[in-house]
Amino acid sequence: MEMTNARITLAQRPSGSLDASCFTPEAAGPLPEPGPGEALGKVEWLSIDPTIRMWMAMDTYLPAIEIGAPIRSAGLVRVVQSDNPNLPVGTLVFSTPGWQEYAIVTERDQVVPEGVDPTAALSIFGITGITAYFGLLDIGRPSEGDTVVVSGAAGSTGSIVGQIAKLKGCRVIGIAGTDGKCEWLTGELGFDGAINYRTGNVAKALRDHCPNGINVYFDNVGGDILEMAIANLALHGRIVMCGAISQYNDDAPAPGPRNLSALISKRGRIEGFIVLDYLKRSGEAIQDLATWLMEGKLTYKVDVMDGLDAAPEALMKLFSGANAGKMMVRL
Amino acid sequence: MEMTNARITLAQRPSGSLDASCFTPEAAGPLPEPGPGEALGKVEWLSIDPTIRMWMAMDTYLPAIEIGAPIRSAGLVRVVQSDNPNLPVGTLVFSTPGWQEYAIVTERDQVVPEGVDPTAALSIFGITGITAYFGLLDIGRPSEGDTVVVSGAAGSTGSIVGQIAKLKGCRVIGIAGTDGKCEWLTGELGFDGAINYRTGNVAKALRDHCPNGINVYFDNVGGDILEMAIANLALHGRIVMCGAISQYNDDAPAPGPRNLSALISKRGRIEGFIVLDYLKRSGEAIQDLATWLMEGKLTYKVDVMDGLDAAPEALMKLFSGANAGKMMVRL
Repeated sequence: MEMTNARITLAQRPSGSLDASCFTPEAAGPLPEPGPGEALGKVEWLSIDPTIRMWMAMDTYLPAIEIGAPIRSAGLVRVVQSDNPNLPVGTLVFSTPGWQEYAIVTERDQVVPEGVDPTAALSIFGITGITAYFGLLDIGRPSEGDTVVVSGAAGSTGSIVGQIAKLKGCRVIGIAGTDGKCEWLTGELGFDGAINYRTGNVAKALRDHCPNGINVYFDNVGGDILEMAIANLALHGRIVMCGAISQYNDDAPAPGPRNLSALISKRGRIEGFIVLDYLKRSGEAIQDLATWLMEGKLTYKVDVMDGLDAAPEALMKLFSGANAGKMMVRL
Repeated sequence: MEMTNARITLAQRPSGSLDASCFTPEAAGPLPEPGPGEALGKVEWLSIDPTIRMWMAMDTYLPAIEIGAPIRSAGLVRVVQSDNPNLPVGTLVFSTPGWQEYAIVTERDQVVPEGVDPTAALSIFGITGITAYFGLLDIGRPSEGDTVVVSGAAGSTGSIVGQIAKLKGCRVIGIAGTDGKCEWLTGELGFDGAINYRTGNVAKALRDHCPNGINVYFDNVGGDILEMAIANLALHGRIVMCGAISQYNDDAPAPGPRNLSALISKRGRIEGFIVLDYLKRSGEAIQDLATWLMEGKLTYKVDVMDGLDAAPEALMKLFSGANAGKMMVRL
């Protein structure tokens, strides 16, 4: 069997908006070589996440991707060659294969049970769902009756956050970038309100929607909206810093919220988190999410593009807001 | 007995640096009239705190001081007229009398036990000590071996924070505004390091003093130093927002830290607090603080000015950094 490993590597670090110049498509890169106890797998799906933009640019919670290396990316990989009885051929795992056709599979990778839809495994049961679950419940700690505001609310994480908050008895207001997204939030997802940040007066809308202030703000975007959320934070309000997608494409760091010291009077809290810290507890999240999904209480959307070559465009769509659900690429 | 009530009232809200134009000295203001069950007290000491500047300017965690009303201020008041057997003449209480000679005393005020030095009651056993105790231990939650950085470290609150952190087995670095203050921190108070923010390269000094990052930053100043602390925050580091004295005199809000989203990668937390929320637990703090004081493990400094007329100057000294310890006025 002849095996070539098409891949897309990092050509240069991004500066400003992402474009094709950051990526080098290689029709036949070197085939990964499994070590003892490891297996070789074929990449079937790639998860396209905003954090990839950060990994391309600089060291963060993980070292920056090296120039010339495949773009780091989570995904689903099926074992095709194995000497390890614990990794039989045909096993599907969730891992971080990168943008390439073949990747190493190890026993540390998480096996995807048979019967689980791959798009569910990459969204609601993957990083997206686990991020939403622990970010909201463990960092935001909403109580019944709390007002929860979510930015990037129609995005993959935001839409799950809002739905979990509704299931926990909260009033939920979403912030999104089109009227269509806002209608989806207040219609199908049952949010109590939605604000179009491109056309609305967000500061006024937040005051109107949250007359008693915001108890939990789940922040996917940073920037001006974070400042407005601080201004409307209720006493003892919590801000979950999950992402700052509005700033990932900035070259120079933008000024932070001018009203940060309002946290003193409000006894407010801002806390950042990375889902990696919660992966060992992912079973808790998956159990609840699976139950809600089976009961028809949870909806998720996926946006699938086909072929490895589509990966750069899929990533860029995240930053223009053109995606309609959890972005993924099917190889 | 003829009683006049000299007082100092709010002439206008401050804009920029405080000056005499904000204050109206009145030789004989109206005498407060105790209601049923209340007593009349003579103000013996006033506690001069940065938060007074905020109360003068705007609504915060308390409503703004009204124009024409005495400047709100904590202090010690001795009962001089009373029909209430629970408030006998001669009782000394801690309350919020404002800048005037006479004030109402109620049963809700905290009685200062006989034998406690009034300067101790207003500093180490007052707002200062209780703020330092709960801000550090309850919000900052340092563990033994943690690196704790305190700004305004030679100030009344900061110097207690650093000493408590040392008592809890932490490495403590203080930031202060003169070499003399820095020598006091590393000398008498036993801090592990001190940084003069007026002459030193604070960013570099923080990196040098905290090679493993900052586990707890106790922030009394806000501004640039907050940004530098975020940059040097260790994984899961905590920032206690106690004050932002660098910004109290600003008319327009200054931009916030440009690196706030670094809290995501660092899983960092910023939390504001107001000591009012902890007053019901003040007994816990006072018990520990009194023990440490008697054991000679805790040092505090007071800066006393004499006469009600000195109150405005005492307040202004806080913002120029000219005070040398907890600022108070003896009437």
